[in-house]
Amino acid sequence: MSEMMKVAVMTGIGKMGFEERPIPEPADNEVLVKLEYVGICGSDLHYFETGRISDFVVEPPFVLGHEPGGIVVKVGKSVTHLKEGDRVALEPGKTCGHCEFCRKGLYNLCPDVIFFATPPVDGVFQEYVAHEADLCFKLPENVSTMEGALIEPLAVGFHAAQQGGAHAGQTAVVTGSGCIGLVSMMALKAMGVSKVYVVDVMQKRLDKAMELGATGVINAKEEDPVEAILRLTDGKGCDLSIETAGSEITTKQLMTASKKGATIVLVGYSASGEMTLPIGMALDKELTFKTVFRYRHIYPMAIEAVAEGKVNLKGIVTDLYTLDEVQEAMDHCINNKADVVKGVIKIC
Amino acid sequence: MSEMMKVAVMTGIGKMGFEERPIPEPADNEVLVKLEYVGICGSDLHYFETGRISDFVVEPPFVLGHEPGGIVVKVGKSVTHLKEGDRVALEPGKTCGHCEFCRKGLYNLCPDVIFFATPPVDGVFQEYVAHEADLCFKLPENVSTMEGALIEPLAVGFHAAQQGGAHAGQTAVVTGSGCIGLVSMMALKAMGVSKVYVVDVMQKRLDKAMELGATGVINAKEEDPVEAILRLTDGKGCDLSIETAGSEITTKQLMTASKKGATIVLVGYSASGEMTLPIGMALDKELTFKTVFRYRHIYPMAIEAVAEGKVNLKGIVTDLYTLDEVQEAMDHCINNKADVVKGVIKIC
Amino acid sequence: MSEMMKVAVMTGIGKMGFEERPIPEPADNEVLVKLEYVGICGSDLHYFETGRISDFVVEPPFVLGHEPGGIVVKVGKSVTHLKEGDRVALEPGKTCGHCEFCRKGLYNLCPDVIFFATPPVDGVFQEYVAHEADLCFKLPENVSTMEGALIEPLAVGFHAAQQGGAHAGQTAVVTGSGCIGLVSMMALKAMGVSKVYVVDVMQKRLDKAMELGATGVINAKEEDPVEAILRLTDGKGCDLSIETAGSEITTKQLMTASKKGATIVLVGYSASGEMTLPIGMALDKELTFKTVFRYRHIYPMAIEAVAEGKVNLKGIVTDLYTLDEVQEAMDHCINNKADVVKGVIKIC
Amino acid sequence: MSEMMKVAVMTGIGKMGFEERPIPEPADNEVLVKLEYVGICGSDLHYFETGRISDFVVEPPFVLGHEPGGIVVKVGKSVTHLKEGDRVALEPGKTCGHCEFCRKGLYNLCPDVIFFATPPVDGVFQEYVAHEADLCFKLPENVSTMEGALIEPLAVGFHAAQQGGAHAGQTAVVTGSGCIGLVSMMALKAMGVSKVYVVDVMQKRLDKAMELGATGVINAKEEDPVEAILRLTDGKGCDLSIETAGSEITTKQLMTASKKGATIVLVGYSASGEMTLPIGMALDKELTFKTVFRYRHIYPMAIEAVAEGKVNLKGIVTDLYTLDEVQEAMDHCINNKADVVKGVIKIC
Repeated sequence: MSEMMKVAVMTGIGKMGFEERPIPEPADNEVLVKLEYVGICGSDLHYFETGRISDFVVEPPFVLGHEPGGIVVKVGKSVTHLKEGDRVALEPGKTCGHCEFCRKGLYNLCPDVIFFATPPVDGVFQEYVAHEADLCFKLPENVSTMEGALIEPLAVGFHAAQQGGAHAGQTAVVTGSGCIGLVSMMALKAMGVSKVYVVDVMQKRLDKAMELGATGVINAKEEDPVEAILRLTDGKGCDLSIETAGSEITTKQLMTASKKGATIVLVGYSASGEMTLPIGMALDKELTFKTVFRYRHIYPMAIEAVAEGKVNLKGIVTDLYTLDEVQEAMDHCINNKADVVKGVIKIC
Repeated sequence: MSEMMKVAVMTGIGKMGFEERPIPEPADNEVLVKLEYVGICGSDLHYFETGRISDFVVEPPFVLGHEPGGIVVKVGKSVTHLKEGDRVALEPGKTCGHCEFCRKGLYNLCPDVIFFATPPVDGVFQEYVAHEADLCFKLPENVSTMEGALIEPLAVGFHAAQQGGAHAGQTAVVTGSGCIGLVSMMALKAMGVSKVYVVDVMQKRLDKAMELGATGVINAKEEDPVEAILRLTDGKGCDLSIETAGSEITTKQLMTASKKGATIVLVGYSASGEMTLPIGMALDKELTFKTVFRYRHIYPMAIEAVAEGKVNLKGIVTDLYTLDEVQEAMDHCINNKADVVKGVIKIC
Repeated sequence: MSEMMKVAVMTGIGKMGFEERPIPEPADNEVLVKLEYVGICGSDLHYFETGRISDFVVEPPFVLGHEPGGIVVKVGKSVTHLKEGDRVALEPGKTCGHCEFCRKGLYNLCPDVIFFATPPVDGVFQEYVAHEADLCFKLPENVSTMEGALIEPLAVGFHAAQQGGAHAGQTAVVTGSGCIGLVSMMALKAMGVSKVYVVDVMQKRLDKAMELGATGVINAKEEDPVEAILRLTDGKGCDLSIETAGSEITTKQLMTASKKGATIVLVGYSASGEMTLPIGMALDKELTFKTVFRYRHIYPMAIEAVAEGKVNLKGIVTDLYTLDEVQEAMDHCINNKADVVKGVIKIC
Repeated sequence: MSEMMKVAVMTGIGKMGFEERPIPEPADNEVLVKLEYVGICGSDLHYFETGRISDFVVEPPFVLGHEPGGIVVKVGKSVTHLKEGDRVALEPGKTCGHCEFCRKGLYNLCPDVIFFATPPVDGVFQEYVAHEADLCFKLPENVSTMEGALIEPLAVGFHAAQQGGAHAGQTAVVTGSGCIGLVSMMALKAMGVSKVYVVDVMQKRLDKAMELGATGVINAKEEDPVEAILRLTDGKGCDLSIETAGSEITTKQLMTASKKGATIVLVGYSASGEMTLPIGMALDKELTFKTVFRYRHIYPMAIEAVAEGKVNLKGIVTDLYTLDEVQEAMDHCINNKADVVKGVIKIC
């Protein structure tokens, strides 16, 4: 009889509970990972609060959590690059490998992806998971499994920076200084971008941005961001920007403050899903808008950036909880959005 | 004393007149061109009807027209690649050659560009013009100076197709079947795009699109364009689209009918300058929006495409006027927008 | 007991024979294809003549042939996009879908690829094959299964053209007018390249190139190719070239005849594997060298190009044999290299 | 009568002298720069030793030197972005701004470029120079004019890294640890490349590479570089390499040690101009070769990288001379190639 593990399940809107489930057996191409840390993502909180994100509807009991880091404890028989005891970051999406998108390298767009904590696929607020070994990336000695868990949000930041064609010599702006804004800023810096300014309305978050390496910050309550950006760029405007606030106002500000020919990367979802934008201005300046859906090909690069000390991933964690505290964790994150930059559950 | 030439001038909103002006002397790096044909662009009509486009305000007397083709009649002394008698297409924008944008090859974004018929710079509804020789492109024997004039709008179509990364094997959609929609369709075909569908609500324009080589057309009055595109692509959606109608509805339709990862090129200006768009959908599908401001590096390629018979540029011309008829020409184009695909003034 | 099929096997260097083998059963994600045509590739001939290509050594009995076209006769239970009776082109390489190369879209570099007729993997000079359904591409009505077989070499041509960044407005040169030279020329044309010149020393092959759509040809026995290319480009040199002859001389000629900043795509293998090249000239002109190993993401585009009539694939076939004539087929191709552009085996 | 300045002239092979020449007057679009430092480049030494580089032949008296930094002392009347007292780095090549290459942004390939110290155009081993203001880049406070002079070689390194598509997450190798090897290594690091290994046979140069930030070094006298690179990359090979040694052996080593699909950037000129390379291996691995001719669009980025402390440009200077010592300077650099990484002449 298989051994059992503790699993935190969402039993209804706003309610967490626990179940015992069998520890899975890894398939030939999988490894069994004893999880140590799982990050709490905004989408976890959204499912928890409302029971759905667009067409994805939670059917309880449902397991949240898709930002895991842990230790390999069992290795499938065809796996050669990992062994017991290896500490790993787990990329949460298993893709088919054979569709048009996968074959072209756009695997984040695979229609048959199986992604942790996206209904009906369970997530990993639990003690163990068996996962495709090719999606488990070994961590160097100087990268902890908590950082391993946070490679997931960092990957979004790196993908945003890559979608924008980030490179040395540019001046970039990030609107929104929450978790995704901060990892985007750090990814831009790690990719060699010279100057990265962060815009928000909460000074506490901007202080965090400065602490983590922003070139400068703009508090939009105190200063017009467009004027500030133009001032900081000698009137030239920014080369690249990443919008993580999900607001029409910030998107318009970025358009106005962009240099001609610049790129704006849209990452944040607006509440309504819609934005009214001055498209005529976009044409006059020949702007490009790129968008971001998850990420692709990022884990090795992101882990490397953390290992080299280019990204201070620990620095984004403001709140740590145990698995037993999962109900309090979710409630606290929802009720203190301004203060919690990133909550993480320590599994064991 | 220099010889004189006839110049059609806009003397006020809705009013054309004539002036005699001296035939200019070409500078060392210029040629003097005897103009044979000048196309009438939507922007000429807009200046004529309203006296302005955004911050560019007409101060009469003002010369409209920026789509010229003609014959070289005098050659500046440092010009080596042209000689008297050469028939040429004239690229209308003189750029500085030394700013950040020029040096990077993005010369269409040069802030110091001097562009025909953009206030306060006069255009070329006139008999002669002296122009930078490097902007005068020699036409092959089988390309007429009327086609030479129309290289200008065709260049917009090619730039749109290039901005969208058009290539063989794609399925593309163009919304709007006016002049720019048609040249975009023809540019896509010339760049090897396999299937190009055109959407409009006027059957006469769609018939023209079919005549000029569209793979198929969709009359949005008779069929939902999204359903039609999905049907024509086996449910996959289109890889690339070019929006020339300047409408929010068509832009949303393209977003809905796009394959994941697709690119939408925005060319048409909406009346209000704004559009309300489902940005959340763009993120879910990881769409890219490119925009178009004029063009760069297109003339040689566009002339080549006409010479090879890949683009039927004569086919877009529906109305031909003499220079003396310029008042009637402008009035007719404005009063018959549905019927006039492209009006051209024959100068001599 | 399973039914049997006829299989042509290489029984030793220069020797073909036949075996009866069981018709395979398609796995869930496979289809069973009744083969109609299989092309004879230069690598088949090389294995047949010498028993090896670099580290790949034939262990007889071995089945040659990796350019197959046929009809689906049985469908694995998880296959949805194909049905019995569909005519298909078969992409010959099964890739792992999960390694670094596959995930990045560079699946032709997958180290675990299983490729027809590459020792120890058998090829398809036989009546049936069970193959991954995602690698079987349905042919439109106007594309025959013989053309389906020839999609394989055409894919090399398209990949070469894509590696070179081929696009409208360019002038390109192809050295070598054998099968790969011809498909490269046709791929360049289909991708919108304006002018494609072909260089060879055999007039018969050059005549074939003209017949199949080359803009012009250069017989290097009669005219210096460098001078000819410079003359044809008004002294500017070519923008792009594809070297399929595998010779040092032609590669140097392309370097000399290239415009500054041009790209040269190396496709042909030289006999020795080495070339002595004027690298200093490459630096002075800032040339780029791209290389080609098989292809990726090409089948749908190539099939489309044939269906649209942009590529005359039937036109490259000079010799057709039955499966029973396989010994004669191989001997004839080897003994008549100058005359046989492309041999194909008609299986049934 | 205009004031005079001291100019160091090459009076014959191996011989320097001095002349008095008038201090030039800046044209409207120029500034007059009082030079403070001019670097000594390998090409200066080559002209000095042999009187020519390929078709460029020195006609004495000739002024060497093309790596200048100085202070603006007079401003042409149409110059707005510079003022007296600004410290600047001077990009040495004036381009036409209107040819095909300039218009496409490939201005380093402009056939009409006027480049300091390239016969018959004089260089800047002298006290003053009048130069196009758009080619004079203002230095931030924390960048000295000596560093300003060295932006020129650094620009070659950045261009090499850009030609190679350098980006975060890669492992790169640089062969050759002279001035260009070192600036290439530093450019790769500044562009976010994770790991940069340097190969040379002189330990002193490798020590310098470590001092300036290399991830590791390989002394090819003590260890096989291919084995070392494979060991350092867990057998995967390097993603990107920059060859600055100009040798066939190192180029072959890089080919062997490259990952499939990798890019090799050729920067070093071999003595004979030729290399014999295993092109068959290049095809099997689908390698790309890029080459480097000077640079384009690099100065602002390179200055920024120095200002941010990402590149230790002072660290490459091993020998400093006065203008009066120019004969000794040239002799010393030529006679101590192993020890002199970079010599610089302090003008005043």
